[in-house]
Amino acid sequence: MREEGTGVAEGEGDMPDMVEAIEAMFNARTVAVVGASDNEGKLGFHILRSLTRGEYGGSVFPINPGKREILGMRSYPSLMDVPDKVDLCVISLPARLVPGIVRSCAEKGVKGIVLITAGFREIEDESGGRLQDEVMHLAREAGMPVIGPNTFGIVNLHASLNASFTPQFSDIKRGSISLLSQSGGMSHLMGFLSMRDDFGFSKIVGLGNRCNTDFADMIPYLMRDPGTRVIAMYMEGIDKPRRLLEVARKFRGKKPLVAYKVGLSSLSDLASKSHTGSVAGRHELYEVGFRQAGILTVESSSGLLDAAKALSSSPLPTGYNVAVLSGQAGPGMVVCDICEREGLHITSFSGETQRRINSLLPPLTVRTNPVDMGPAWYDSKAIAGIVDSVLADTSINAVLICIMFASANEESIRGLSGVLKKWSRAKPIVCCFSSPPGIWEKEVAGLVQNETIINYATPERAAKALSALWRYVKIREQM
Amino acid sequence: MREEGTGVAEGEGDMPDMVEAIEAMFNARTVAVVGASDNEGKLGFHILRSLTRGEYGGSVFPINPGKREILGMRSYPSLMDVPDKVDLCVISLPARLVPGIVRSCAEKGVKGIVLITAGFREIEDESGGRLQDEVMHLAREAGMPVIGPNTFGIVNLHASLNASFTPQFSDIKRGSISLLSQSGGMSHLMGFLSMRDDFGFSKIVGLGNRCNTDFADMIPYLMRDPGTRVIAMYMEGIDKPRRLLEVARKFRGKKPLVAYKVGLSSLSDLASKSHTGSVAGRHELYEVGFRQAGILTVESSSGLLDAAKALSSSPLPTGYNVAVLSGQAGPGMVVCDICEREGLHITSFSGETQRRINSLLPPLTVRTNPVDMGPAWYDSKAIAGIVDSVLADTSINAVLICIMFASANEESIRGLSGVLKKWSRAKPIVCCFSSPPGIWEKEVAGLVQNETIINYATPERAAKALSALWRYVKIREQM
Repeated sequence: MREEGTGVAEGEGDMPDMVEAIEAMFNARTVAVVGASDNEGKLGFHILRSLTRGEYGGSVFPINPGKREILGMRSYPSLMDVPDKVDLCVISLPARLVPGIVRSCAEKGVKGIVLITAGFREIEDESGGRLQDEVMHLAREAGMPVIGPNTFGIVNLHASLNASFTPQFSDIKRGSISLLSQSGGMSHLMGFLSMRDDFGFSKIVGLGNRCNTDFADMIPYLMRDPGTRVIAMYMEGIDKPRRLLEVARKFRGKKPLVAYKVGLSSLSDLASKSHTGSVAGRHELYEVGFRQAGILTVESSSGLLDAAKALSSSPLPTGYNVAVLSGQAGPGMVVCDICEREGLHITSFSGETQRRINSLLPPLTVRTNPVDMGPAWYDSKAIAGIVDSVLADTSINAVLICIMFASANEESIRGLSGVLKKWSRAKPIVCCFSSPPGIWEKEVAGLVQNETIINYATPERAAKALSALWRYVKIREQM
Repeated sequence: MREEGTGVAEGEGDMPDMVEAIEAMFNARTVAVVGASDNEGKLGFHILRSLTRGEYGGSVFPINPGKREILGMRSYPSLMDVPDKVDLCVISLPARLVPGIVRSCAEKGVKGIVLITAGFREIEDESGGRLQDEVMHLAREAGMPVIGPNTFGIVNLHASLNASFTPQFSDIKRGSISLLSQSGGMSHLMGFLSMRDDFGFSKIVGLGNRCNTDFADMIPYLMRDPGTRVIAMYMEGIDKPRRLLEVARKFRGKKPLVAYKVGLSSLSDLASKSHTGSVAGRHELYEVGFRQAGILTVESSSGLLDAAKALSSSPLPTGYNVAVLSGQAGPGMVVCDICEREGLHITSFSGETQRRINSLLPPLTVRTNPVDMGPAWYDSKAIAGIVDSVLADTSINAVLICIMFASANEESIRGLSGVLKKWSRAKPIVCCFSSPPGIWEKEVAGLVQNETIINYATPERAAKALSALWRYVKIREQM
């Protein structure tokens, strides 16, 4: 598998076994927590709770020189006293003590480190930068990836491994989106949004100050990780933009890379290393760089999750021809605007499809694409027939369906479920089914869970998610 | 109050008593339902359920020539048989029968009509247009506003009046946002979003085909309606853009008008009537027209609700100086990007404020604006102290606070509540407090319900809502 390493990091001091080491970390069978505590006021307490909240099957070793037992677990005075090998070491100790612990990790043969501790490069005092350099040097010599410092940790939901200070991350569903984030706060936000929107994650990684493990190091691992279908990235400053772009280009089209980049004023790195001085502004510069490297960009945290949701569970459209089927005219109009703006085409149906629609829908409204299915409200069979014929139309590459609940269409979702299941692997079916709390929720959740449809809270978000699928198709076509 | 009528409709056949008549409709003490039914497959069944689901205190008269009782209510063969006066008549009968009913309404002295029936101007057959003209002529002669045809109805939550075919509208909370919508589907969507986001509406009005009651007719009524603080509008095509803009200008700055306009390809009306042929495109044309008339524009249904929420419950900023206080650095960065783009200024604190922050926060992170309150996690008193001193700083006009839950900051929201209440009427406090389901929800809901803060699901939405407040201030300044 070595040939799948980044192969782009020569001369930058990167480690050849990075991918294997990261893989070992994220699938650790043994985890030591240095700085484990039974004091609720310490992060080391919450880290232990995180590791024991889910169904993690590996061993957890609290390390604390003053304790023999913490939270019912045998505690060890030092890493060297652990009677087993240690795959992953989570460190939550004052910064000045960290280099000593990293030395112990090297000696113990630890595969990788999650360095929760803050107080390194980011603080006002320059001692922080010196400490970080020392840790980086030690870790590089030992070939150990260090996630952090100044991170909330890492989560691998497929291994029930929650090596973070937030136990609630264990409650997130398993999914196939892996999130790489430069901000713990934004990782928490996106984790909480997933809990409320009922979708899952594969890995959630707080990169923190990126001592020796940056986006470019994580991407090769996630590209070969079978639990990851989409890589979602929240970015602030990029230290080595050229390296990131090279890695992205190398894996272009293998799995989608979606980026939400903030910090418009800190784009100077990319700007200074670019030679296209004629481009209007920094934001445009990074947009261009990302597009050329095959990285999809989005404009918000919800846009990042919406695109990742679609890319993780939907088939890709084989062309840009979209059908819009709406239970009411307005939402259909809303999505048409966005489709048009995003280069999707609201095309004509085949003659046969149009005839079938005309036979099912009275001539009280628009029956061509976009179809207003309003007049078929009480007739869930007619709605299912329209949707079926449009999904069967080979000139249609993707279908957007927007139906807002009303008493008169209460049966429509139940009536649609068979048709949607029949076609769900053939082409993208992106929906906005909206209802008062308690209505349609079970039906829609069922369709979402078995990946029959993707559902969004608003028509706009549904249309933008579909456009993300189409943008990814174009990224693959340009290879 | 006559001088508050639109005064702009001369020559267009509008009725001088429109505002009074609309007011009477929305506060109807007696409602007749023509086409009332005990058949679940008829809209007339659902309309009756809507009128009886809430706590409506007026009288409801089902009209159906074939029934003596419907849903336990005395039914009348015709409108003329109702023994009381009728303020509002809701009609759900085949289109061809509607002109006869409108004649009866005129004879009975009905104040206004909600015409649910579809099959008028919007259908393929031109008979629909002729029927609509006939209804319009009859209604104009009688001075009756007609909401519709082809509408789901109207809802006045303050009167517990749900004259629509969707009983669930009765479950929406009372608030001070009134929604005028050209689409029933989008009205339903926004109603359902409000139920999930726990905010309320005052009136929800489905304008439908706007027989004789358009945006420009509703605005003067809502401008003087004490239950309405903000007018939110969902628009598709605008028949008489000049008239709408004149009404908006007349009431400029009295209450916020927020518009979400879709149908980019149908903007030809506005374009053809405008004389600024040099403007780049139709979208820009309508943007310019709306801005000049003092109408705030937004780009999505959630953007419409987010702006309306802020404008309905927050004090306005007296300047563009914003403080960003975040529990984690990332969300602070996210909102700064948006503030900068929207013309808000992340300013310096006064010397005293900065000294107080420095005394409360260790030098582990950025302590100037935007403040990363991360290092104070375990210290909810320090967080409250920072927020208090910033809110007290007279150079700060509005505060954005973004805190994502983590075990270590669990107490922060409870700790903040006193400080937030103390300053809530002095300046806008716009928040993104995010947590897993079941955590912080009660505390945040309490702060939202008594209008101490406005809370949004993402930092981006919070920052954009604050920018809507600032844009409205500028609209008022330009009067």
